[in-house]
Amino acid sequence: MISAKVCSLKKKKILVVGAGFGGVFVAKELARINRDQFDIELINNNNYFVFQPLLPEVAASTIHSSDAVVPLRQLLRNVQIRQAEVMGIDFANKTAIVVQGFRRIPLDVPYDELVIALGMSVDLKRFPGLPEHALTMKNLSDAHRLRTHVISCLEMADVATDADLKQQLLTFVVVGAGFSGVETVAEVNELIHRALRYYPNIKHEEIKVYLIEYAPRILPTFPADLAAYATKRLELHGVEVLTGIGTKSATSTAIELSDDSIIPTRTIVATIGNGPNPLVETLGLDMHWGRIKTDRFMRVPGHDGVWAIGDAAEIPLVEQPAEDPAHYAPPTAQFAVREGRQLAHNILAKAKGEGLKPFAYTSKGSLASLGMSKAVAEVYGVKLSGTLAWLLWRGFYLSFLPGFASKVRVLVNWLMNLMMPPNIVLIQSSLPSTRYIHYRKGDKVLEPGMLIDGFYTVVKGELKLTIDNPETGEHFEKVFGPGEHFGERVLLKSALRTGLVVALEDSTVLWISQRDFTRLTRAFPYLEEYFKDYIDRTFGGPDRAFAPGSAERPPELESLR
Amino acid sequence: MISAKVCSLKKKKILVVGAGFGGVFVAKELARINRDQFDIELINNNNYFVFQPLLPEVAASTIHSSDAVVPLRQLLRNVQIRQAEVMGIDFANKTAIVVQGFRRIPLDVPYDELVIALGMSVDLKRFPGLPEHALTMKNLSDAHRLRTHVISCLEMADVATDADLKQQLLTFVVVGAGFSGVETVAEVNELIHRALRYYPNIKHEEIKVYLIEYAPRILPTFPADLAAYATKRLELHGVEVLTGIGTKSATSTAIELSDDSIIPTRTIVATIGNGPNPLVETLGLDMHWGRIKTDRFMRVPGHDGVWAIGDAAEIPLVEQPAEDPAHYAPPTAQFAVREGRQLAHNILAKAKGEGLKPFAYTSKGSLASLGMSKAVAEVYGVKLSGTLAWLLWRGFYLSFLPGFASKVRVLVNWLMNLMMPPNIVLIQSSLPSTRYIHYRKGDKVLEPGMLIDGFYTVVKGELKLTIDNPETGEHFEKVFGPGEHFGERVLLKSALRTGLVVALEDSTVLWISQRDFTRLTRAFPYLEEYFKDYIDRTFGGPDRAFAPGSAERPPELESLR
Repeated sequence: MISAKVCSLKKKKILVVGAGFGGVFVAKELARINRDQFDIELINNNNYFVFQPLLPEVAASTIHSSDAVVPLRQLLRNVQIRQAEVMGIDFANKTAIVVQGFRRIPLDVPYDELVIALGMSVDLKRFPGLPEHALTMKNLSDAHRLRTHVISCLEMADVATDADLKQQLLTFVVVGAGFSGVETVAEVNELIHRALRYYPNIKHEEIKVYLIEYAPRILPTFPADLAAYATKRLELHGVEVLTGIGTKSATSTAIELSDDSIIPTRTIVATIGNGPNPLVETLGLDMHWGRIKTDRFMRVPGHDGVWAIGDAAEIPLVEQPAEDPAHYAPPTAQFAVREGRQLAHNILAKAKGEGLKPFAYTSKGSLASLGMSKAVAEVYGVKLSGTLAWLLWRGFYLSFLPGFASKVRVLVNWLMNLMMPPNIVLIQSSLPSTRYIHYRKGDKVLEPGMLIDGFYTVVKGELKLTIDNPETGEHFEKVFGPGEHFGERVLLKSALRTGLVVALEDSTVLWISQRDFTRLTRAFPYLEEYFKDYIDRTFGGPDRAFAPGSAERPPELESLR
Repeated sequence: MISAKVCSLKKKKILVVGAGFGGVFVAKELARINRDQFDIELINNNNYFVFQPLLPEVAASTIHSSDAVVPLRQLLRNVQIRQAEVMGIDFANKTAIVVQGFRRIPLDVPYDELVIALGMSVDLKRFPGLPEHALTMKNLSDAHRLRTHVISCLEMADVATDADLKQQLLTFVVVGAGFSGVETVAEVNELIHRALRYYPNIKHEEIKVYLIEYAPRILPTFPADLAAYATKRLELHGVEVLTGIGTKSATSTAIELSDDSIIPTRTIVATIGNGPNPLVETLGLDMHWGRIKTDRFMRVPGHDGVWAIGDAAEIPLVEQPAEDPAHYAPPTAQFAVREGRQLAHNILAKAKGEGLKPFAYTSKGSLASLGMSKAVAEVYGVKLSGTLAWLLWRGFYLSFLPGFASKVRVLVNWLMNLMMPPNIVLIQSSLPSTRYIHYRKGDKVLEPGMLIDGFYTVVKGELKLTIDNPETGEHFEKVFGPGEHFGERVLLKSALRTGLVVALEDSTVLWISQRDFTRLTRAFPYLEEYFKDYIDRTFGGPDRAFAPGSAERPPELESLR
């Protein structure tokens, strides 16, 4: 790190971690106001800036995923961009510890001034099953995943033979009715109904879309009459809006609400549950409501040269703030942009030995799209709703989107979308190799005749396997508890499921894909022996045919898997 | 299946499997010429048709991934689309066995006439290491993966501190110089050089791009002078064209050629190695050169109501074909389209009891893009090269692309690309949880100080672990052979690597990601015990600190992983 130290004698090194609205705008403004005095570096785990307000449109196929983001290297021309993970910050030695590149050897990046702009994370731990079964809407891959998931539900519902399964596949639940929740439910609902003309076996009335909000009404930051208008619009297009109802838990087949009602569904989108960024949590800084406490100048008290902005920071707006959210800058893009710009000037002032300015800003208003060319808006105290608000919404975000190329791209997307049929291309991403699955008591985990797909280890609860062979009258039963497992016998034989597995109580299993399980047992002789022995002990050998027909399948089954 | 049988009394059921050029065009033509007499169903594992000629442009970010494909439901309005996997065909009972939807219970789909249009697969088994380490260019996700991979190589090279690693990251090898290979190397080379202005630490002369062809020249289906022009154009833009050289093997860090030379690289794209579709192979049909033998009417001999077209079929063009590829329809899109259209008429003729027409067609020419607004073309015997050929290439593919919406989308992409900077957004896909990695003798697998990433099981070969602690003088060595494993000690402790692992001979390991390994050992007590015991036996316990500094890392390392 000698070269970097020599360097820092000439120029102050300003290190920005996180490239949300706050991080990008502080770097941009710093580069604009003084590109010679500072070395500016921005570290982010992606090489692009996500324009969050457009994520619901990505989920709805209205715009291409890569058009809702801007490459940081194109956006910030005089800023050094490092795509890396920040692992820790050594405040005493003024260095950030990052991991990057192929070899993943931790590297020290020194700084003179550090801007923490890491945002908030999604934290769903309070709701059992939600972390594993809910989709989120925080970053680009979330939006992309939601889009893929919705279209694959339509594809599967179109060919589903089981009525219950079809209803689960055609039920979509969005939890949380802030901006993100309302725009997501509106856009996804529009995508589904526009796409239905291509799915002859699905009727519009089979679609159920829910918006669930714990507060007494949706869009809590908007005036009540605009929220009421928004509710009416959503309901008009078939969205069922449930307010004053919380979420209790989720499984792979349903969501349970605070009034103990259960909605069977395969799609839960959670736009709730903000928590501190995992790195921020480990820094040992003074926190309040999950955010880093700063003074009015956005400095982090007690740490020289450390600043915090954006959702990660709690910046007081008044001299003596009380326990009142209104006394602090709210976690919105609008504020983050202003904080970033103002911080750039404070950092420059500090370098020049001039006085810092306290952060001050009042919101200019809010906008929320409701899909179907409608929106609600409150701008400079003026309330608008309908198509005019929607045009305002589009115009505002277009002007707000950084980078000329991005503006053109999004505009072209919007124009194309007006003329073109919806994009229902289903680009499947490979499933993860392991995942935790929650089952409610009574849920069927496996049914006879299903094709083998994975190996199941019980983490919590109890599940029962029953195998019946009507031809031979054979009957086999076994109950599995934590640490026990099932699926290995059929998996190692590459055959069809012969048994029924039902959850005897609320249970969690760890699922491992067939491919990975097979690779693992083959490469790791110890495991292979264990399973052979286990199958002998438990089932009386791998070749015992429990169920009818299991020997009659064509031989190509073997080689195909 | 009773309802389907009743149905087939009224209308003949025509089942098309595979939605490449052949499958799509037979379905489209059937729907056009007689939509009342037939029930037409198309089964494909994706819900879209891939316009293969545009895949190199997807890899190069010139067009959006979803714009190079057309949703089948939009393309084929009077055809039933089923997104499913075909597992087998029961010719005697005239049914296809498919797996679809959530429950994956095999389903019988009956047919009267079956069209097999499953194309060819990539088969790289002949080249050790290539199946695991080469990217392919067969479908949409391949193109997307290549694009992501190329940009991530630039991101990593921009921050690489090791000169050898940087050179590997900046070396790109395309194997096979047919259409697909030439267009891919040209487009990717253009993307890289256009993107470099955003990567300040990479110079143009550090980029190495190779095109490797076993035949004595590139583009074997083109006239020699056009191929020579193409070679010159590619070389002008920095592509090194190596002809008359085959590929021997590949590892994670290099490709070995038939002249025993080794090119260190992290990017190998294989456009070679066609093999039969795995399903086609299991059908028990007469095959020749990996394709299903048909008669001149595209019927599969010996099976009533079974037809084959496209790359999967070997359709004779003359009455008495010899062992000469020129006597059979070549595996090109142009032929597949004609075969599909003609087959539709033959199926109709059969239903009407009229005579069938033998397939006959002569190629109208070939086109290949060379990037940088240049191409080569031979159309109706006229040879063209340069910008005019490139305009012809674009115009031809635009007219050839099925669906009006797709044409507009691709055209807009092209226009935007002329005006806009290249799209270098790196949308990372999650890494697979297990993968096989090949190492050459002497390759470093792990180095001290690297961050833990996974667990390694030796499949083949021998690797040696050396741990040295200069502070205490401790030295530890162990050689691992097949079935043995390493990485578990550091992984279970969540610490930094302390040892160096080097391949003692050419070796293969199975790698399992840290996340999945940890989940598995936690959920599966048997495995956890085994590893605890193993670590005690082998290393004298988990807490033995072998290397300096391993205790000094900040505690956040633990919680972050």
